[in-house]
Amino acid sequence: MTQLLNDIHAIILAGGSGTRFWPLSRETCPKQMLQIVGEDTLIRQTIKRIHGFVPSENIWIVTTEDKAQDMRFHLQSLGSLAKSVQFIKEPVGRNTAPAIGLAAIYLNRLSPESIMIVMPSDHAIPDTQKFLSDLKLSIEGAKEDYLVTFGIKPCRPETGYGYIKVVNSSEIGPNGLLKVERFIEKPNFQTAEAYLSDGNYFWNSGIFVWKTSKILSKIEKHLPELYQTLKEIESILFQLDKPKELNEPNKLNKLNKPNKLYKLYSNLESISIDYGIMERSSNVLMVPATFQWSDLGSWTALDEIVDKDEQGNIFKGNTVDIGSKNSIVFSGQRLVATIGLKDMVVVDTPDATLVTTKDRAQEVRKIVDTLRQNGREEHLLHKTVVKPWGSYTVLEKGEGYKIKRVVINPKSKLSLQLHRRRSEHWVVVSGIAKVTKEGETYLVHTNESTYIPINTKHRLENPGEGLLQIIEVQNGDYVEEDDIERFDDVYDRT
Amino acid sequence: MTQLLNDIHAIILAGGSGTRFWPLSRETCPKQMLQIVGEDTLIRQTIKRIHGFVPSENIWIVTTEDKAQDMRFHLQSLGSLAKSVQFIKEPVGRNTAPAIGLAAIYLNRLSPESIMIVMPSDHAIPDTQKFLSDLKLSIEGAKEDYLVTFGIKPCRPETGYGYIKVVNSSEIGPNGLLKVERFIEKPNFQTAEAYLSDGNYFWNSGIFVWKTSKILSKIEKHLPELYQTLKEIESILFQLDKPKELNEPNKLNKLNKPNKLYKLYSNLESISIDYGIMERSSNVLMVPATFQWSDLGSWTALDEIVDKDEQGNIFKGNTVDIGSKNSIVFSGQRLVATIGLKDMVVVDTPDATLVTTKDRAQEVRKIVDTLRQNGREEHLLHKTVVKPWGSYTVLEKGEGYKIKRVVINPKSKLSLQLHRRRSEHWVVVSGIAKVTKEGETYLVHTNESTYIPINTKHRLENPGEGLLQIIEVQNGDYVEEDDIERFDDVYDRT
Repeated sequence: MTQLLNDIHAIILAGGSGTRFWPLSRETCPKQMLQIVGEDTLIRQTIKRIHGFVPSENIWIVTTEDKAQDMRFHLQSLGSLAKSVQFIKEPVGRNTAPAIGLAAIYLNRLSPESIMIVMPSDHAIPDTQKFLSDLKLSIEGAKEDYLVTFGIKPCRPETGYGYIKVVNSSEIGPNGLLKVERFIEKPNFQTAEAYLSDGNYFWNSGIFVWKTSKILSKIEKHLPELYQTLKEIESILFQLDKPKELNEPNKLNKLNKPNKLYKLYSNLESISIDYGIMERSSNVLMVPATFQWSDLGSWTALDEIVDKDEQGNIFKGNTVDIGSKNSIVFSGQRLVATIGLKDMVVVDTPDATLVTTKDRAQEVRKIVDTLRQNGREEHLLHKTVVKPWGSYTVLEKGEGYKIKRVVINPKSKLSLQLHRRRSEHWVVVSGIAKVTKEGETYLVHTNESTYIPINTKHRLENPGEGLLQIIEVQNGDYVEEDDIERFDDVYDRT
Repeated sequence: MTQLLNDIHAIILAGGSGTRFWPLSRETCPKQMLQIVGEDTLIRQTIKRIHGFVPSENIWIVTTEDKAQDMRFHLQSLGSLAKSVQFIKEPVGRNTAPAIGLAAIYLNRLSPESIMIVMPSDHAIPDTQKFLSDLKLSIEGAKEDYLVTFGIKPCRPETGYGYIKVVNSSEIGPNGLLKVERFIEKPNFQTAEAYLSDGNYFWNSGIFVWKTSKILSKIEKHLPELYQTLKEIESILFQLDKPKELNEPNKLNKLNKPNKLYKLYSNLESISIDYGIMERSSNVLMVPATFQWSDLGSWTALDEIVDKDEQGNIFKGNTVDIGSKNSIVFSGQRLVATIGLKDMVVVDTPDATLVTTKDRAQEVRKIVDTLRQNGREEHLLHKTVVKPWGSYTVLEKGEGYKIKRVVINPKSKLSLQLHRRRSEHWVVVSGIAKVTKEGETYLVHTNESTYIPINTKHRLENPGEGLLQIIEVQNGDYVEEDDIERFDDVYDRT
């Protein structure tokens, strides 16, 4: 698109937790923040895909409050684009209908005639050009007050997707779109087979285009309770009645748990837009997608979207194999050796390995549930935790000590902080560290070390142009992350 | 046995590399040094099993020169027993016939009428009492100049073992033993099925009992070249003709590669005692073993010897499973999550994971070959390397640095050493370190650190009664293990 469409907005839904991609996904690193296919993480690919079609300031990320900060840091690598992207924060996750409704009241305030492109943040769409070309079609439908969706022509009797039935797939309707008869939830295998041979059934891609005013009137009609709550939220958010507010989506940042907005939102019914609106609406059109698509609903979805070897295998990372077939082996630095696998999935991360048959890959959710119930950590965090200033990797934790490798980005600094129950030894292994310790500031060069006693205000900073790497040895009776008091922080985490 | 048998010697064959138990086994940590089943490592279980039947100074370990030092350190935990055990070192591995021949010339010198119990170091025999009771029978046979072996009654058509055919299993021969008709190499499945139903076929356990003089005469007859070489080796080893020499098995330590003994031994044909002697001998008796036995020939052998859950699974370590059957999952500290496995083996170690079907578990050797060919390290060393003074674990290795956790046993010390290309930061995380640096000696307490510059003679010592743990951060352009000059070492490694 050469001409940017100023009244078209992209709403990227990014509240999902992605437990089905465990152990690669974690609560603090959901699927949309993973690089599973393609050259970047799914959410960054999604933003790049839509950017150019809509102005960067018309890109909105809807996510839950607890994920928003990490996600903003995650987008930093997009540079100026990341700065324009706006966040709409749900106090808690309540599925897609409330999330889309919340976005709609923002946009409605900005421009009631605006058009919303609603898209998941964690799907794979390799061909951007085809996607944008289909999107153009959908815009025309939306302009004429239709709810427009995208259907994917099925290539197998898939039971993991919802379906869209069109009235007649050979009868091209308004603007080259097909008229939708109904939305259908995930079928059983026999039904899916019938759908496949019928020709009028498409996979529901979860991508929607409509006027903001139109979806709000549909919510008013089909989900009146949600509508009522959205109006109340609107009146609280925009009570000052200043258009300026609209460009301050951080307003919602202040939805702290005890306040009214939190109560209103958390009391909403969790309901999907498909079930709450689409299944009940009549004037729906569908674009028969020309682009390749996968919702990446589980590890086995890689089969649809990643090139395989002659034996039908997908290998990534440090792997050695003898004679496996139709299997997926995902590794990082550690070695994974496989022999004679058939229809298996193996996923290796620094602290956990998953081995499952493909037909039961969905059950990884139960593993995550088990870990949560048992108070484990392998579903929460990776060993490497990305921070706004860089990252740290826990190399080992033992009785009374913890060892981390800390990587600080150029010109970045951690908060001025203090620990009540641990001291820290820092050995610089590359770069030069600028250390502040109780007011005194000094440099620590590669192959030098310094010591931060317990109860001592300190700050670590990388004044250089390259990465700074230090090895941190913590000593204390308690070496958990929550032993931290922040006094000053460039990322507002105090 | 209440009465020790002073002229009976146990020859424990411990030269095997055990590649089939990779990734748990490594070149520097072969199968016999692993705790796979039971409460101790296989070689220590083997020594404890035979100790009490023969005096501790009659226990001989035959292994290759490169394994001997590590193995001696490995036996230290046996205390005074370890001190009595004697080592016979093969310059290189040449299979069981030369190894047994080498042991025989030692024993022949000591006492030509001595009886040798030859046993592998890496088999599982859970019931020591039954084993010793069977062993007693075999001794009687050996005293009457028979070669005696132990046969295991087959319980399935196993194709992984050699077989022994007895003349008639219902016809008890001399001393309750069965007369052997012949030895048979590993059969195909159909043949193994026939053997199973026949009743006169037994699995060859690889345990043998005979007079030293008898096996030497058999070697002279069936393997004359080996016999000739053994006589030459004997003449070199015992040229001083002093009986004292016999109690100095370290003599063979000095078989350095360029010398004559190395040449003689390395030129020997690699041949097993089964193929070289047993298959060609007529006066062989077999004890029908009453003890449970497994040669632990591959991961799947655990099925024979380890208790399974109701679904036929064996789980060890940090595992979570949903609905697997007849599978083996071996983990350590890291989490291994499995779903719906059937007849699979999963083995996890800190730096490598193996996933294989049971029917192809033998092919793990090919994985090891591939790693060797590609110059990898995962077949050589574990991340944790056991040393005579304790152990170290490589936590991370990066560009120009390496991080280790070093554990020093009470009252132990590393060598006085120096590194040409790296400096070392040491942070004590538990215990008190005694550090020697260029002649100066000082203590470093928990939560203190010290620095060893490049090219500086140093020594680390644990003067305390508990473990000393330090984190070592190495910095340098080369951080490999071979950058070490030793000046003084209590373990004679200078």
